Amino acid sequence: MIDLNSDLGEAFGIWPMGDDDAMLDIVTSANVACGFHAGDPSVARRTCAASAARGVTIGAHVSYRDLAGFGRRFVDVAPAELTADLIYQMGALDAMARIAGTRLRYVKPHGALYNAIVHHEAQAMAVVDAVRTFDPELVLLGLPGAVVLDLAAEAGVRTATEAFADRGYLPDGTLAPRGTEGAVLHDAEAVAARMVQLVTTGTLTAVDGSTIHVEADSLCTHGDSPGAVRMAAAVREALVAAGVGIEAFAR
Amino acid sequence: MIDLNSDLGEAFGIWPMGDDDAMLDIVTSANVACGFHAGDPSVARRTCAASAARGVTIGAHVSYRDLAGFGRRFVDVAPAELTADLIYQMGALDAMARIAGTRLRYVKPHGALYNAIVHHEAQAMAVVDAVRTFDPELVLLGLPGAVVLDLAAEAGVRTATEAFADRGYLPDGTLAPRGTEGAVLHDAEAVAARMVQLVTTGTLTAVDGSTIHVEADSLCTHGDSPGAVRMAAAVREALVAAGVGIEAFAR
Amino acid sequence: MIDLNSDLGEAFGIWPMGDDDAMLDIVTSANVACGFHAGDPSVARRTCAASAARGVTIGAHVSYRDLAGFGRRFVDVAPAELTADLIYQMGALDAMARIAGTRLRYVKPHGALYNAIVHHEAQAMAVVDAVRTFDPELVLLGLPGAVVLDLAAEAGVRTATEAFADRGYLPDGTLAPRGTEGAVLHDAEAVAARMVQLVTTGTLTAVDGSTIHVEADSLCTHGDSPGAVRMAAAVREALVAAGVGIEAFAR
Amino acid sequence: MIDLNSDLGEAFGIWPMGDDDAMLDIVTSANVACGFHAGDPSVARRTCAASAARGVTIGAHVSYRDLAGFGRRFVDVAPAELTADLIYQMGALDAMARIAGTRLRYVKPHGALYNAIVHHEAQAMAVVDAVRTFDPELVLLGLPGAVVLDLAAEAGVRTATEAFADRGYLPDGTLAPRGTEGAVLHDAEAVAARMVQLVTTGTLTAVDGSTIHVEADSLCTHGDSPGAVRMAAAVREALVAAGVGIEAFAR
Repeated sequence: MIDLNSDLGEAFGIWPMGDDDAMLDIVTSANVACGFHAGDPSVARRTCAASAARGVTIGAHVSYRDLAGFGRRFVDVAPAELTADLIYQMGALDAMARIAGTRLRYVKPHGALYNAIVHHEAQAMAVVDAVRTFDPELVLLGLPGAVVLDLAAEAGVRTATEAFADRGYLPDGTLAPRGTEGAVLHDAEAVAARMVQLVTTGTLTAVDGSTIHVEADSLCTHGDSPGAVRMAAAVREALVAAGVGIEAFAR
Repeated sequence: MIDLNSDLGEAFGIWPMGDDDAMLDIVTSANVACGFHAGDPSVARRTCAASAARGVTIGAHVSYRDLAGFGRRFVDVAPAELTADLIYQMGALDAMARIAGTRLRYVKPHGALYNAIVHHEAQAMAVVDAVRTFDPELVLLGLPGAVVLDLAAEAGVRTATEAFADRGYLPDGTLAPRGTEGAVLHDAEAVAARMVQLVTTGTLTAVDGSTIHVEADSLCTHGDSPGAVRMAAAVREALVAAGVGIEAFAR
Repeated sequence: MIDLNSDLGEAFGIWPMGDDDAMLDIVTSANVACGFHAGDPSVARRTCAASAARGVTIGAHVSYRDLAGFGRRFVDVAPAELTADLIYQMGALDAMARIAGTRLRYVKPHGALYNAIVHHEAQAMAVVDAVRTFDPELVLLGLPGAVVLDLAAEAGVRTATEAFADRGYLPDGTLAPRGTEGAVLHDAEAVAARMVQLVTTGTLTAVDGSTIHVEADSLCTHGDSPGAVRMAAAVREALVAAGVGIEAFAR
Repeated sequence: MIDLNSDLGEAFGIWPMGDDDAMLDIVTSANVACGFHAGDPSVARRTCAASAARGVTIGAHVSYRDLAGFGRRFVDVAPAELTADLIYQMGALDAMARIAGTRLRYVKPHGALYNAIVHHEAQAMAVVDAVRTFDPELVLLGLPGAVVLDLAAEAGVRTATEAFADRGYLPDGTLAPRGTEGAVLHDAEAVAARMVQLVTTGTLTAVDGSTIHVEADSLCTHGDSPGAVRMAAAVREALVAAGVGIEAFAR
């Protein structure tokens, strides 16, 4: 059993992004932008409605307040303000999920915030506080080994982990930094085979050729280019062909 | 029985506005800014917590997306986008109310939107759609005679009306336009006496000296200056002294 | 002699828009977004540099402050604030033009503002004030017959007019409203032939088949789709083939 | 000879801040907000006009793009984007200075950016690039010892340094961190005497009682409270009484 997630609802105003309709036929969990790095109320409403119509689980893709930087820039926001910013986003997105007949089920921090809370304890705790305060039933989706997942577990917040389908891994199990050899994978069939290996054996081949253990409740796929949609589809098909059930981690 | 409402949570980031603590000791309903014309997530959280702590009912003071203009400029936004913008704001504010142990009970459109939906049917219908879609139990607070209240009633959305404590009225029951003689009242005692008359007799003295009927479930008071807080307090004291019960219209 | 203009620099942050490089090989005047409806400082800098490198004249595509609505929504902003908003945008864009070795040469209001100042005298005067105050040498580009052009002329501000290559015209010389028969033209060759007729004879065939006079110092072309780029190229080629010189109206 | 500078034009939309009129009668250099952390086009225009009317030199108080955080949060923006953001702000503010009959004369980075470029070389270089690219005649105002001042000097950009009138200093000449004993000074007369000592002897008494050397071309004063305005006035009066000339460092 594995979940497939993707970042969706990342249009803003007149500017489109990605092929959400195609991705919603592939994934089981939708990380929906909440308006702070991407998305706007109309986009969020439409994305939640489309997700609900297909039975795709809705997660809040929460972010720093940074439209101009698409949430990809670390912002040294005070923890209490970050918590309030995240609750605001969760509440807004939950409204869109509820009027579509479902509810917000999980939270995935986006971009620079996602990376910061791998190690930044104060912001990680702010994220945990936001989830616990808003709805203790929500699941927090993050990177295996991130400090935010430890803090969540201590606080009684459920967690889930993800692997990145199109990314190479270092021997220590962390992502190979963008710009280095093998950091980003482009061959859909090879990626699909890797994901089958990961889900069925719990292992991946790292960039140096070694075999590593990688834990994941969900696989992150992308849909922001035609090639990305094809890769996500290939991953799904290969998993199904291998007898793996595709199912949301949070329901 | 009458409700007293006030616009609160209108700080933004570093910029303060009004004496919310003083006003929360006076009013029974708090129109809390939702971040589109004023307020930010931290301010909204704090304002909802302070309102809940005093038993003051929380309403969403929803607006056009216009921080730079404080929501005071008409924006010709398409109805479907306006509806989504309002649901987003309601969801975000309801989150702040819920984590404070209560819930959003009513919605009051702000500023230029408030004025537009007195006559602009498409935007008025968008407001009604937003309220009905988000939570049909919410009450919509507006100006007596506004088309939005008629549309709400037709749609089965509960409504409430308000009078403005510090404003003069024309003989036809509409507000005297700002800048005209008697449009804005400054004498706290006179205003308090007017409000007692309004609540106990359903009448007010218009700017031309005639007596008019004014319907109101709530009285709108302001707290953005020391004089404004004193006037609001005077209104409350005079009403209590006259034996009028002060109670939220939505609970 | 005719000028070709196009709206450029309309990306924002991560969101791309249009094929600016292709269009800069076609047009003689670039209406560069200034950050209020589209564009950001990095995009504006890049667009001005690319324009300057090709000798394309730079104009400020000024707008209401409305990123979420792409400047397509009328905003009832007070004239004095509008004037300041426009001067701010002109100054920011002129900086980008100057560091690219050239200067801002003209101003074209965008979207809803463009449409408003066809008839809204107070906002039209605010636009004229902004241009005259910032730099009286700038040319104001607008719709033939617009009140803003009359006010500019009275104020001593130079003006230029434009026709829309891909739009149908009513018998009275105004644009056929979008959504009506013949309002938007899609056949590149037919559009190119129309533009040759317009430039060489000063006439166009209106949607009812009648021949009308249309005044234009510049032709507005679009580049936000592959088809749009091809149409713009076809217009240029047809004009050149007809012996028409393609030259910026402001230099 | 010494300059007095203050942060001005920090209102935004409806939200006021500080008593700019009072401060403009005291200072010789106005650090005017450019709209990225505070200020809006109308406020910037008004502030530049008021500065020019009093002969106060205008500087651009440039910032990260962070209205919600008042520019007080470090943002890990890429250097090239930061440079473009700063040029955009300088251009916009220079427009407001020029239409007031003067010009932008200096640049003072604000808040978290000011602090970052004390040590963050890439962002510091981005600031220097912005100043040099926009106008190599501008002076860059910063903290003595900041890496940005060294980089500016290497790049041929003129620099000036400032001391903070209301702040305590550590024995090593850096500011005592807020929240520590003696970090913020409140006694106007004592502060005035310190500033006279600094200007006439180049020394200050540090928080541990030791005497340190402090270099400063300008003294930063604040005007965001009645007490702050009185302190700034006291500093000016004491300097004048001590025979010190008060004059802008950039003209």
